[in-house]
Amino acid sequence: MSSSWGNSVRISIFGGSHTGAIGVNIEGLPAGESVDWPEVLAQMARRAPGQDKTATTRKESDEPRVLCGLLDGVTTGAPLCAVIENNNQRSKDYSQLKVLPRPGHADYTAEIKYGGHQDVRGGGHLSGRLTAPLVFAGSVARQILRRRRIIIGSHVLKVAGAKINDRPFDPVGASPELLSRLSGEYFPVIDPAARESMRRSIEEARLSLDSVGGVVECAVLGMPVGAGDPIFDGVENRVASIVFGIPAVKGVEFGAGFSVAGMRGSENNDPMYMSEDGSIRTRTNHSGGILGGISNGMPIIFRAALKPTPSISREQDTVNLTERAGTKLTITGRHDPCVVPRAAPAVEAAAAVAALDLLAQSRML
Amino acid sequence: MSSSWGNSVRISIFGGSHTGAIGVNIEGLPAGESVDWPEVLAQMARRAPGQDKTATTRKESDEPRVLCGLLDGVTTGAPLCAVIENNNQRSKDYSQLKVLPRPGHADYTAEIKYGGHQDVRGGGHLSGRLTAPLVFAGSVARQILRRRRIIIGSHVLKVAGAKINDRPFDPVGASPELLSRLSGEYFPVIDPAARESMRRSIEEARLSLDSVGGVVECAVLGMPVGAGDPIFDGVENRVASIVFGIPAVKGVEFGAGFSVAGMRGSENNDPMYMSEDGSIRTRTNHSGGILGGISNGMPIIFRAALKPTPSISREQDTVNLTERAGTKLTITGRHDPCVVPRAAPAVEAAAAVAALDLLAQSRML
Amino acid sequence: MSSSWGNSVRISIFGGSHTGAIGVNIEGLPAGESVDWPEVLAQMARRAPGQDKTATTRKESDEPRVLCGLLDGVTTGAPLCAVIENNNQRSKDYSQLKVLPRPGHADYTAEIKYGGHQDVRGGGHLSGRLTAPLVFAGSVARQILRRRRIIIGSHVLKVAGAKINDRPFDPVGASPELLSRLSGEYFPVIDPAARESMRRSIEEARLSLDSVGGVVECAVLGMPVGAGDPIFDGVENRVASIVFGIPAVKGVEFGAGFSVAGMRGSENNDPMYMSEDGSIRTRTNHSGGILGGISNGMPIIFRAALKPTPSISREQDTVNLTERAGTKLTITGRHDPCVVPRAAPAVEAAAAVAALDLLAQSRML
Amino acid sequence: MSSSWGNSVRISIFGGSHTGAIGVNIEGLPAGESVDWPEVLAQMARRAPGQDKTATTRKESDEPRVLCGLLDGVTTGAPLCAVIENNNQRSKDYSQLKVLPRPGHADYTAEIKYGGHQDVRGGGHLSGRLTAPLVFAGSVARQILRRRRIIIGSHVLKVAGAKINDRPFDPVGASPELLSRLSGEYFPVIDPAARESMRRSIEEARLSLDSVGGVVECAVLGMPVGAGDPIFDGVENRVASIVFGIPAVKGVEFGAGFSVAGMRGSENNDPMYMSEDGSIRTRTNHSGGILGGISNGMPIIFRAALKPTPSISREQDTVNLTERAGTKLTITGRHDPCVVPRAAPAVEAAAAVAALDLLAQSRML
Repeated sequence: MSSSWGNSVRISIFGGSHTGAIGVNIEGLPAGESVDWPEVLAQMARRAPGQDKTATTRKESDEPRVLCGLLDGVTTGAPLCAVIENNNQRSKDYSQLKVLPRPGHADYTAEIKYGGHQDVRGGGHLSGRLTAPLVFAGSVARQILRRRRIIIGSHVLKVAGAKINDRPFDPVGASPELLSRLSGEYFPVIDPAARESMRRSIEEARLSLDSVGGVVECAVLGMPVGAGDPIFDGVENRVASIVFGIPAVKGVEFGAGFSVAGMRGSENNDPMYMSEDGSIRTRTNHSGGILGGISNGMPIIFRAALKPTPSISREQDTVNLTERAGTKLTITGRHDPCVVPRAAPAVEAAAAVAALDLLAQSRML
Repeated sequence: MSSSWGNSVRISIFGGSHTGAIGVNIEGLPAGESVDWPEVLAQMARRAPGQDKTATTRKESDEPRVLCGLLDGVTTGAPLCAVIENNNQRSKDYSQLKVLPRPGHADYTAEIKYGGHQDVRGGGHLSGRLTAPLVFAGSVARQILRRRRIIIGSHVLKVAGAKINDRPFDPVGASPELLSRLSGEYFPVIDPAARESMRRSIEEARLSLDSVGGVVECAVLGMPVGAGDPIFDGVENRVASIVFGIPAVKGVEFGAGFSVAGMRGSENNDPMYMSEDGSIRTRTNHSGGILGGISNGMPIIFRAALKPTPSISREQDTVNLTERAGTKLTITGRHDPCVVPRAAPAVEAAAAVAALDLLAQSRML
Repeated sequence: MSSSWGNSVRISIFGGSHTGAIGVNIEGLPAGESVDWPEVLAQMARRAPGQDKTATTRKESDEPRVLCGLLDGVTTGAPLCAVIENNNQRSKDYSQLKVLPRPGHADYTAEIKYGGHQDVRGGGHLSGRLTAPLVFAGSVARQILRRRRIIIGSHVLKVAGAKINDRPFDPVGASPELLSRLSGEYFPVIDPAARESMRRSIEEARLSLDSVGGVVECAVLGMPVGAGDPIFDGVENRVASIVFGIPAVKGVEFGAGFSVAGMRGSENNDPMYMSEDGSIRTRTNHSGGILGGISNGMPIIFRAALKPTPSISREQDTVNLTERAGTKLTITGRHDPCVVPRAAPAVEAAAAVAALDLLAQSRML
Repeated sequence: MSSSWGNSVRISIFGGSHTGAIGVNIEGLPAGESVDWPEVLAQMARRAPGQDKTATTRKESDEPRVLCGLLDGVTTGAPLCAVIENNNQRSKDYSQLKVLPRPGHADYTAEIKYGGHQDVRGGGHLSGRLTAPLVFAGSVARQILRRRRIIIGSHVLKVAGAKINDRPFDPVGASPELLSRLSGEYFPVIDPAARESMRRSIEEARLSLDSVGGVVECAVLGMPVGAGDPIFDGVENRVASIVFGIPAVKGVEFGAGFSVAGMRGSENNDPMYMSEDGSIRTRTNHSGGILGGISNGMPIIFRAALKPTPSISREQDTVNLTERAGTKLTITGRHDPCVVPRAAPAVEAAAAVAALDLLAQSRML
């Protein structure tokens, strides 16, 4: 189902940018897992808008209310449903979106698909706001994973135009400490100097009424050997299918990713060795921790490319759907010049949900 | 389920490199669709090994036998199951793969996952040979799609080290004629000169006991507006989840893909206009024909990165799983120095199955 | 997933008897369907407790709040999520249920399954209260169906010990008018005299600190020929799998049902004929409107057997799970002496959701 | 998907009565499970036709060929696909079935559903012959279950008109020895005298050109406490949804089943006690071993009602679909006067597949 994801642990996301509430129902969680609430709120805060100039100034508390599934903060084994009220909807008129679709947005495709019945306010169900329930689900999943020594973190690897971008993860040496640090930050980077450079690029774009894209790199440490199933339920298939659920993602790659196209087998193959602790490891990690779709115990590394926010303040070419003729459109109102920093916690959340489900589907949970 | 894929039209792939047979069961096909057999065989032949020096010399007829689901060459609406006998298995001893896993292969991950019970012969169920049933399924799906004016084709965009790579698709102007031409070729390229350059690069790698990776670019023309569903069942999610089912794929990107990270919104947004035929189109196609996960009527364009064949003739570092100590391994026997040309029909097949299922799940079939 | 149901239109039920709220998320609804709110409330009221002496005296408004998926009362095509607050939880101590499981309840099975982490209050997620969100989903589904001339109704066919039970549906002649009348009643019966007899039987049981079971018979009129798919997704499979989701159901039968065991083929086969309106009908309807799992255009008729409420006021034998020894238990508090009348709207709701999903999965919606 | 069943262990059945072959693909089996081939063949033989006068005289070897998934008789963890060739198709002309649909068969419903493209020969994909691959899948599943001390057996409880029917299972005392005995028999009954009486009733029906229905009762012993999930994935839902996949089944009931309608709570509730071996048991077993959809450790008992074979030699009323007018039809050729004895192994197979999948979905495998 369109807005549900998961083979054995399933999340179902509901709501729209301006509906009464949004939320997520999580099925298949193991019973007896405690959920630390401040940690949930910390993850929600990382994604919430209004934190600095790189993001929309819409302010929302985004505090989830758990309707069911937790008892004294511990999972009961029954579905866990949480909702977030939409308190800050502006009452402006959105009806022009049905006539003048915004380039780069889903206004036109949704209009045709739903025969004009879709909720266009703020992008409706297709809004980036729907990453809030994803981050909630991920904040629960990552706590369950951490108890199994699986740690997830991400950073902003690139932002368009930045003179300095962030250092990539060391694919064989990324540490739990680094990931824990990153997973607590609003605009996570390995190298703080990169953040300043990126922020300047974003600000430049904003001042020129424009927006920029970027890349988030994510790592999952501690995944045991054997998660993922052949052919269509491998780690790559599952991670990609959930990460593409984050609006603006246009590419997903694992390990060496697209650079494999320029490599030889003798370079790309990761030599195996026995580590001092008796575990089997590889000296490089071009596989991104995945062979045959199955985790090999090395860090799982992937990157997601995010397009520039399509809402820009410049005049753009569109089509008047009523008159069926070309016309001009200027978008007003609040919007992020760059969604990449706020996308990082959503990418981590997607990775956490995917990792938990991969363990469950592989009968390793 | 691991080796099954599809929401409304589902393929289930079975078999291993050296099992009695391999095959695919297709459920949910509409009744009354004729299947042209020579066209099926032509697609199977494109993927079959032994065609030139870039590929393994293993020869197999790969002629599927349809067990059920077709009556006088027309779909009955019941499951269509086809099997391909494995006639050419060499009887060599594969048992060393359980002790000395090959770097870059799934030998180690499968050994742990299946507790030593997996079929290691030729890679078992994880073998690239399993793309044969996928190509069969795709050859049926693309015939059904063509009747609805949906055309699929791909080409080898890059092969490592080639001085000349192929021209990319014109994302707004790729023609059905070009796709039809490409989808009949063994080593499809837009620019024939590129093929020669690529072949030389592959041959160089082979002579140096090595292998190379590359990129396949695929286009789907004629997809009507409205296919794909929000969040997790969008076109990107669905196409990625099936394309990662092709062994060696390490990245999938749509439209401008990873290059969006270097673009501004004003560049990346595709301006909309009314075409002369009364349809709504975009002047560029950085979206790859997909907005909000939903097709917008423009060509759907995506690229898949394929890693170099892990089987190379050079000595490599591995681990002896019995002795739990590092050691050296030299792989002998036949293998492709580059799987990219043979992967192209598999990528097209995956796209065809995905497109058919997207139409069905969107209630447009 | 355990608490989700549906191939193409899916409902996910969440919550427990004493959680903050309960609810349902409905995915896959067609866009553009208006939902009449008074009709929704009327169905909720039929299921709500506290209406007469046959039911628990717990009073709840059970008014759902739609969080998303409706815009001006019309479906948007996005998930429709509705929640019902649990306002009337008594704060009594339920902890003894974890030590002294009630016979006929799921206390013991849940304790083992969830390792003691389940929510035992009022039966938790396994409570009959979870039929409220099912009735909500059904009230939406039946409005969509009615627009396609598909009408659903049920009646209480039997209640234990009643001297007079209700007349069964005329399997070839049940009228939309009858079904519409029944589907508006709290304790629906074809023959009002039967209701009085049944009520007396229920009251007798209540006075003797006991409870009674019964049978609900349900009919779906107007289902077009061709809904349902072979083998495992036939009408029987799908209807049974959702109806067994109503607590207390222990048997489901279609058409002649278990009585086929006493029939000959010449009796059971339904003779076909051309009706005056040009449609093909059968003179009898032992098939219950289903042949090969596929609807044949005749009324779909099925019956569900519901066990007596396991909560009775008499002393019963149980086991002390802590001491692991047999002991006695006397259950106190409110409970229905007979759930059958309140189950009728739940059975209709299940039938409505099933019918809508069958149409969708059969590509007939 | 219509012809697939299973949440975590999935079977996909393909083929038709007169296609080249029929078969089943089984996904999600655990690796390392040995499959005893003579036992598989013994189960296939129980279902095969031609064994006595109660069954059709069509003779088929029905020996499955395993294409993949077993290595030296042990599951590899990859899909296990087996096919059975259709050697004995009579070449008679079936085209009249498209014009003169047989009462009680799916000829008419399939004609409309598939627009005339369905395979009508021998019932096509809707033929009872498709229980052969189900029995194969069950024969594998029951071996895996037996290793976990779960035993399945069934018997013919009733056949229409028989003066003596079989004794029902003792719901608290059915022994593994009895089930093992029954599960090896062609026409399994607890009381051999009943079989003779039933055979006479069947023979009488056959001589009067008629057919009879009946009831199969099935028991699953040794299911651990905790299998099955709330609401829609409980034991009842799952067993019913697969058992209704056996042609001719019109009702399924668990434990006391429809008789609960005549019981009081004080009768129907099963008193709990500590058994001498330290396990918790119930003195009666009206629940059929299931509370809240979850197994409680008692025998799981269910019954399936099977209608009389619709193919009878008497003249019947049908409709000429071309002329759209009523007419008479006389069916010729081989057919069972009673499918109940041959249905018993299919019911057991369905129970075995369901039990294995329930364990897997409940993370107990």
